[in-house]
Amino acid sequence: MSDLRTHLFDSVELESGRVLQNVQVAYQTWGRLNAERTNVVVVFHSMTGDSNAASWWGSILGPGRAICTRTQFVVCANLLGSCYGTTGPSSINPSTGVAYGSDFPVCTVRDQVQVQRRLLSSLGVCGVECVIGGSLGGFMALEWAVLDPTVKKVVAVTTSGRHSAWCIAWTETQRQAIYADPNWNGGHYSADAPPKAGLAGARMIAMLSYRNPASFTTRFGREKILADSSAINQNSGENAPEEPFSVESYLRYQGQKLVDRFDANSYVRLTQTSNSHDLSRGRGSYLEVLRSIKAQVLVVGVDTDILFPLEEQRELAEAIPGADLAIIESPHGHDAFLLEGDTLNGIIKKWFSGPRKIIAQPVFQQVTCA
Amino acid sequence: MSDLRTHLFDSVELESGRVLQNVQVAYQTWGRLNAERTNVVVVFHSMTGDSNAASWWGSILGPGRAICTRTQFVVCANLLGSCYGTTGPSSINPSTGVAYGSDFPVCTVRDQVQVQRRLLSSLGVCGVECVIGGSLGGFMALEWAVLDPTVKKVVAVTTSGRHSAWCIAWTETQRQAIYADPNWNGGHYSADAPPKAGLAGARMIAMLSYRNPASFTTRFGREKILADSSAINQNSGENAPEEPFSVESYLRYQGQKLVDRFDANSYVRLTQTSNSHDLSRGRGSYLEVLRSIKAQVLVVGVDTDILFPLEEQRELAEAIPGADLAIIESPHGHDAFLLEGDTLNGIIKKWFSGPRKIIAQPVFQQVTCA
Repeated sequence: MSDLRTHLFDSVELESGRVLQNVQVAYQTWGRLNAERTNVVVVFHSMTGDSNAASWWGSILGPGRAICTRTQFVVCANLLGSCYGTTGPSSINPSTGVAYGSDFPVCTVRDQVQVQRRLLSSLGVCGVECVIGGSLGGFMALEWAVLDPTVKKVVAVTTSGRHSAWCIAWTETQRQAIYADPNWNGGHYSADAPPKAGLAGARMIAMLSYRNPASFTTRFGREKILADSSAINQNSGENAPEEPFSVESYLRYQGQKLVDRFDANSYVRLTQTSNSHDLSRGRGSYLEVLRSIKAQVLVVGVDTDILFPLEEQRELAEAIPGADLAIIESPHGHDAFLLEGDTLNGIIKKWFSGPRKIIAQPVFQQVTCA
Repeated sequence: MSDLRTHLFDSVELESGRVLQNVQVAYQTWGRLNAERTNVVVVFHSMTGDSNAASWWGSILGPGRAICTRTQFVVCANLLGSCYGTTGPSSINPSTGVAYGSDFPVCTVRDQVQVQRRLLSSLGVCGVECVIGGSLGGFMALEWAVLDPTVKKVVAVTTSGRHSAWCIAWTETQRQAIYADPNWNGGHYSADAPPKAGLAGARMIAMLSYRNPASFTTRFGREKILADSSAINQNSGENAPEEPFSVESYLRYQGQKLVDRFDANSYVRLTQTSNSHDLSRGRGSYLEVLRSIKAQVLVVGVDTDILFPLEEQRELAEAIPGADLAIIESPHGHDAFLLEGDTLNGIIKKWFSGPRKIIAQPVFQQVTCA
């Protein structure tokens, strides 16, 4: 449906002062620009996502969906530091002729937003109607609202205004899993021998944070791969990796799946992009920055999200003037922002159709959508 | 106060059929046996604990405490597979003359309880008044209630009647962190070069499960070790381990602390002991097994525990005849069973003083203690 395109910037100066040369940004678009060039929706992917938003958010993006590709011009770009076509650690460093590896710098959330704003300029866009993202993608959406007060609507899903100590701690255990892999080599590994075990381990940890006690326990219980209650006997003398529980097998599978599609250095750098997120950094008090946001904001949380607990979305919705809060009731935890796509589509559609009339209150209105 | 003693069993036959020879069990006792030899309280430690219960549960164990060492004879033994004096992977295998390493078998929760019951026999004990434990220790307490219907009281804290898929998943990520360490070598590492990074990583992951979003975020926020907002600049070109957040430093410190005191094979095997826990395994339906428990049971949960959510303690308290449920309100999550010792002491003392009169109801009574 949408081709992967690329745009090349001669150079990108980062918040840190570091300048990257020859920066390629991969992106996809859906729909057409209107005459005013303002019917623009920017979608941000989350940590290991890519620019093909229609593949992972097809429930909210498409003809007749909340983000309607018949009426909107939708743009989704791969983040700096990722590995799906945009320059990142696995790209060739023009000054050395070899891949950056861990020499690739940490790009902050603000760096990401600035690059995407430049991308829109290059596409001739004159105004942005809506920015939307979940999780790390929600960081970008909120940061955009602060950096560009002309944006009209912001949809921030299962996210926060600053990456919490809790979330930083989760990402730290994941980085440590990667660093512990003997192939890691300080991030200077060869493409033939990447730190696969470490990256798989990181993904396994992340999977816990994306789900919820009830979701795991309901789905897997104490089911074993060997459907045999004597499995303990069979395995007791074996080496440990032969544990027989289905949930263990599931986690390992998830770890392996990521290894086949993602780069360990990109993983490390994008977790650090997350860690950079703080709307108030260098701007005064957190609440004052939230209060300064001019856009109409819809904040969406999930009642069972253990990574970005509802308190964080409540705080956003209470502090941002006129913001609305919708809560998805789901057993899936954080991942409900992807797994409950139809519910999310309904929430956003309803909000787009007239947030002030339908669910707004002087401060904020909580809407629960099962 | 209490000396570390050891008892030697010629052999211990495990549930798996495997027989361990020359099994040493390290234990400590407090107080004196009464004339009937029945004033006995058995305390179980949790995963990385030891037999010195007075050091980690001093708030509930001592003169005048809930477990009063003036009137009770208190026993706490180090678990099979651990590394604090009881035979485990780092012990010499008598049949080979070298340490077991990963040849040490998985000992189930039932194996642990049977060994401790034999230990009590060797001490001349004629009856047990109470068994008590938190987390993995709570598994033992509940299993004891099923294996020994003569035990009078059971206190099961922040625990469950069967290890959930959620908990199994957490332990699996920790085992994988250990396996990923190049020094792991399938569990056959030398004492000079143990898999320290892997074990530290496992502990870091575990620390997340023991705490709670609010506890981390309140304590650490986005505080950095370098109290300088330009830290991002300073570190952006550095290698990843130099991340500046205090919570990262805290986690690494916790990981290092465990490495200095614990063995990686013991860690793996005790997580597998946890995974074996299912009161109903081979005994019929889970609820029927709970209903068959004869002891008076106090179940204690923590409102912010993400590892053993309150639903699990509610289920226990609802199904076990006449059981009582107390809920500790704490920001500390699972670790509240250690960190809220005084509150726990008050709860248990009150319950000991007459559970039926004070907080019992036909099915169960929920008591909230701030």
